[in-house]
Amino acid sequence: MEKRVFDFSPGPAVLPVSALQEAQRNLVAMPGVGISILEISHRSATFTEIIEKTEANLRKLLNIPEGYQVLFLQGGAHLQFAMVPMNLLRGKGKSADFVVTGTWGKKALPEAQREGKARVAWDGKATNFSRVPKDSELDLDKDAAYVHITSNETIQGVQFQTEPAVGNVPLVCDSSSDFLHRPLPVDKYGIIYACAQKNLGPAGVTVVVIRDDLVAQSPEELSPMLNYKVMAEGKSLYNTAPTFGIYMVKLVTDWLLNDIGGLDKMHAINKQKANLLYDVIDGSSGFYDGHAEPASRSLMNVTFRLPDPEMEKKFVDGAAKRDLHSLKGHRSVGGFRASIYNAMPMEGVERLAEFMTEFAKQNG
Amino acid sequence: MEKRVFDFSPGPAVLPVSALQEAQRNLVAMPGVGISILEISHRSATFTEIIEKTEANLRKLLNIPEGYQVLFLQGGAHLQFAMVPMNLLRGKGKSADFVVTGTWGKKALPEAQREGKARVAWDGKATNFSRVPKDSELDLDKDAAYVHITSNETIQGVQFQTEPAVGNVPLVCDSSSDFLHRPLPVDKYGIIYACAQKNLGPAGVTVVVIRDDLVAQSPEELSPMLNYKVMAEGKSLYNTAPTFGIYMVKLVTDWLLNDIGGLDKMHAINKQKANLLYDVIDGSSGFYDGHAEPASRSLMNVTFRLPDPEMEKKFVDGAAKRDLHSLKGHRSVGGFRASIYNAMPMEGVERLAEFMTEFAKQNG
Repeated sequence: MEKRVFDFSPGPAVLPVSALQEAQRNLVAMPGVGISILEISHRSATFTEIIEKTEANLRKLLNIPEGYQVLFLQGGAHLQFAMVPMNLLRGKGKSADFVVTGTWGKKALPEAQREGKARVAWDGKATNFSRVPKDSELDLDKDAAYVHITSNETIQGVQFQTEPAVGNVPLVCDSSSDFLHRPLPVDKYGIIYACAQKNLGPAGVTVVVIRDDLVAQSPEELSPMLNYKVMAEGKSLYNTAPTFGIYMVKLVTDWLLNDIGGLDKMHAINKQKANLLYDVIDGSSGFYDGHAEPASRSLMNVTFRLPDPEMEKKFVDGAAKRDLHSLKGHRSVGGFRASIYNAMPMEGVERLAEFMTEFAKQNG
Repeated sequence: MEKRVFDFSPGPAVLPVSALQEAQRNLVAMPGVGISILEISHRSATFTEIIEKTEANLRKLLNIPEGYQVLFLQGGAHLQFAMVPMNLLRGKGKSADFVVTGTWGKKALPEAQREGKARVAWDGKATNFSRVPKDSELDLDKDAAYVHITSNETIQGVQFQTEPAVGNVPLVCDSSSDFLHRPLPVDKYGIIYACAQKNLGPAGVTVVVIRDDLVAQSPEELSPMLNYKVMAEGKSLYNTAPTFGIYMVKLVTDWLLNDIGGLDKMHAINKQKANLLYDVIDGSSGFYDGHAEPASRSLMNVTFRLPDPEMEKKFVDGAAKRDLHSLKGHRSVGGFRASIYNAMPMEGVERLAEFMTEFAKQNG
């Protein structure tokens, strides 16, 4: 096998090696089928089995109750920013509430404003997007069409630890960067959507878990490709689905079920990994300046700053020498970000923690 | 290598073995990079080089002139059915002309009617979608926003051999199932769009070649993900692009340039392959009933019928014994369809022609 490094990219991101190896075996000819996984028809028996197994894996992992559909779409979270209000807000005479905890929440808001009225129920701007709100801080409209949250803000590294209390209003969650990182009480949500390229698979497939009564709301005049109802009725095969992306989601969820042993275990591992890094930050006497407030810290994206640009360059170079890559923060906020999604091995995080400790000792 | 069969599926479809093997080598760790091609960031130097090379390959193969953008989008041809009128028809006070030569043209029309006025400039229904129109048959509106054609109708197997004359009105072409099968005079087109899963790569990426003056028409209020202008300004990286799909398009276009030697050569091979099958049909004394009229025959999808359902079953079974698969016609029209896209090897077509000749002799 070619040498692999530890890549802390925020997405597209690290995938389980067992899933990559299985896909590799099927890339030229699937045994017993005789064609590549990239060539199989979305209408074939082989693919029908794959998409059904992928859905079954997700239902099992998240314990998704009856009354929810699981859709496999294209266009990433960005297209969901638009599809949610097209389906739930357009022509409904209601307003949507947005809880803005970082860059992605900010991006979702104007997409709703194209389709109807959208209010900011809480804005993290005043606290530099360093935390999520308490329930008591939310200014909610009890007649809203839905409340939109971003469960994990990749760029700022802040994450909801539990669901905010939104009463009977449907909770819509952009879970792109932490989907499947812990068990979820799915019945508290109206819609959970996630692009694949962080915790699920390669870029190009988006999973949408949606409650039946919300599927039923799609306006008739909406184009089929943007219409949850059409996509649900067609079982994600109204048109040619992104077959390979769905196959990869199958392999990643196989790994979660069989190698990891489910989401309780995955959650425990994720806490252990994140704590390794937050402990270094907290024990560095301020050398590492963590961005998120402790109670809102993300288990997926650990964000911190160093004293000055010269030190930052030294940090990047030192990390690269130990095969630790893609640690720079998003261009909009600077600093560093270690993305440690489900598939980042413990060994990678241990090696990063060790490097950070030594680097602080030598330079602090 | 695992055994490969000949698969005549209409899409997702056969890909060049050299491209599959190259992708396989990079699936766990790219040499010198240390991560999988599935894990590389869309903002990385590695991917920047891939997407730039993919565009350069397309520009070289099709001789795309200055003044055209090349976009890599998601959502397949179906989303283009909606995006074209959203961008070119919405709020413009003009009408669009549709030349309907088969199932896909029929599907594109109502998507335009959601956004404005759309007329049928010619309808193949009266002739059972067995041919494309002559220029003299087109009922064109000289003030139309655009004329939409489907260059190859996959289900019926009819194909435009050259561009219809549409005057100064922009010609918009769904080239999903024959893109890159021959050289194209790109300057005759306003937009050429193609989903990848026939001649280009795996499902999940769509190539759009669009003239600058049409890019400039996108309405401001349109959501970024549906907006050609936003996608062109972001060089297809406004959001996370379908990185692996684009990489596969690079490998397939590398193969066309380096192994095949360009589109003139590809066109000659495609004519040779298609003629092998049409010659069997024409020489079968009516045993094989070809669907398309000879002058409109597709080089990509060869459609024909057998005398009765019992014979059809026997044909499928006999073909499978020779490793010839996925020959059944679309459920809406029945019969048979041999999809012989660019990547279908000559050997596969020769073997099918041989089987068809013997089958006719034994059963005719």
